[in-house]
Amino acid sequence: MSYKQVPLVVIKRLPRYHRYLGELLKNNVSRISSTDLSEKMGVTASQIRQDLNFFGGFGQQGYGYNVEMLYNRVSSILGLDKGYKTIIIGCGNLGHALANYTGFANRGFTLCAMFDTDKEKIGTEIAGLTVKPCSELEEYIKLEKPDIAILAVPKTAVVSVADEIVSYGIKALWNFAYVDLNLPGDVTVENVHLSDSLMTLSYRMSENKGNDF
Amino acid sequence: MSYKQVPLVVIKRLPRYHRYLGELLKNNVSRISSTDLSEKMGVTASQIRQDLNFFGGFGQQGYGYNVEMLYNRVSSILGLDKGYKTIIIGCGNLGHALANYTGFANRGFTLCAMFDTDKEKIGTEIAGLTVKPCSELEEYIKLEKPDIAILAVPKTAVVSVADEIVSYGIKALWNFAYVDLNLPGDVTVENVHLSDSLMTLSYRMSENKGNDF
Repeated sequence: MSYKQVPLVVIKRLPRYHRYLGELLKNNVSRISSTDLSEKMGVTASQIRQDLNFFGGFGQQGYGYNVEMLYNRVSSILGLDKGYKTIIIGCGNLGHALANYTGFANRGFTLCAMFDTDKEKIGTEIAGLTVKPCSELEEYIKLEKPDIAILAVPKTAVVSVADEIVSYGIKALWNFAYVDLNLPGDVTVENVHLSDSLMTLSYRMSENKGNDF
Repeated sequence: MSYKQVPLVVIKRLPRYHRYLGELLKNNVSRISSTDLSEKMGVTASQIRQDLNFFGGFGQQGYGYNVEMLYNRVSSILGLDKGYKTIIIGCGNLGHALANYTGFANRGFTLCAMFDTDKEKIGTEIAGLTVKPCSELEEYIKLEKPDIAILAVPKTAVVSVADEIVSYGIKALWNFAYVDLNLPGDVTVENVHLSDSLMTLSYRMSENKGNDF
């Protein structure tokens, strides 16, 4: 099935559906009405019905949604059932924090290796992995074919690192440096620009917008 | 002036305008056409004109935009000229990374204090600040009145920490824990849910969406 007609704003809500449905599953809730789900998520029931209709509309009148089916469906749409292998490049505080975050593994992302150029970090152990030197990136990527590279390197280094690893075959980057990367069209880049988020907070404070963003 | 009619999608682009205009300023570019700005930002010139029209339309036919004026205007709309004081609660790897990120100070956010409950962290120095015990939060917040609390605490602690500091008068939270906070309407919360971003990347990989998100 193709989801090309699905608006971005709906796609952006899918991780939240995933999170709430996962919590329901954990609490052994097997079905839920759009009204109850909407209260939990703080959006309208009609929006929930509209959103989920984009993916085939699983709700049944008088029964609601089958939580497990919906959770699996959302997981599958998000690609979480593919078992992506990730590597982290940059083992400073941010890379360290990301490596220790168990939430990624719970969602099917397996951290396979960590890289740094700093001799003091190479050889140390983080999250059960021994930090490798960046000089081994080419061999590792060509041999192990990780799916996603997490870039936790300084802004000044990110463009050359990204170009390099893309030339070795990496097709997806999760970039934490405050630079927009220009890469070939078949490379998927998701940027986490933390300053943008802080500026959005600042905007909402100065406009007194509340929390309905 | 009120910007209440400005669509969310335009607001979300403002930090990027701020970033690109800041780079132009640094490179001593004093004016720019919507066409040139659009090429730099990878959006259409017509979208740029539309976006900026929401804030009063500063472009002049045949001249383009005055970069400094536009930069200052965008800064002001984002509230970056207010000089917000921030504190970080949670001094693990993530809190540490955030404290050392100079990009925030450059945008007018001043980090004034860091807090933790861990005895091994209390008293250590991070980014030139001595980590204080969380037991001093009440006194500090009531006395110093920081504007923004950055929450880099574990998911299990975030709800009680948020409730506590809001009761001391904090009105804005930048939350990195993977929990949506329910707080009084006059408290502004911006969540950075990193898993959501990773899931968006995964979705785009599985759908081969390219980078036009």
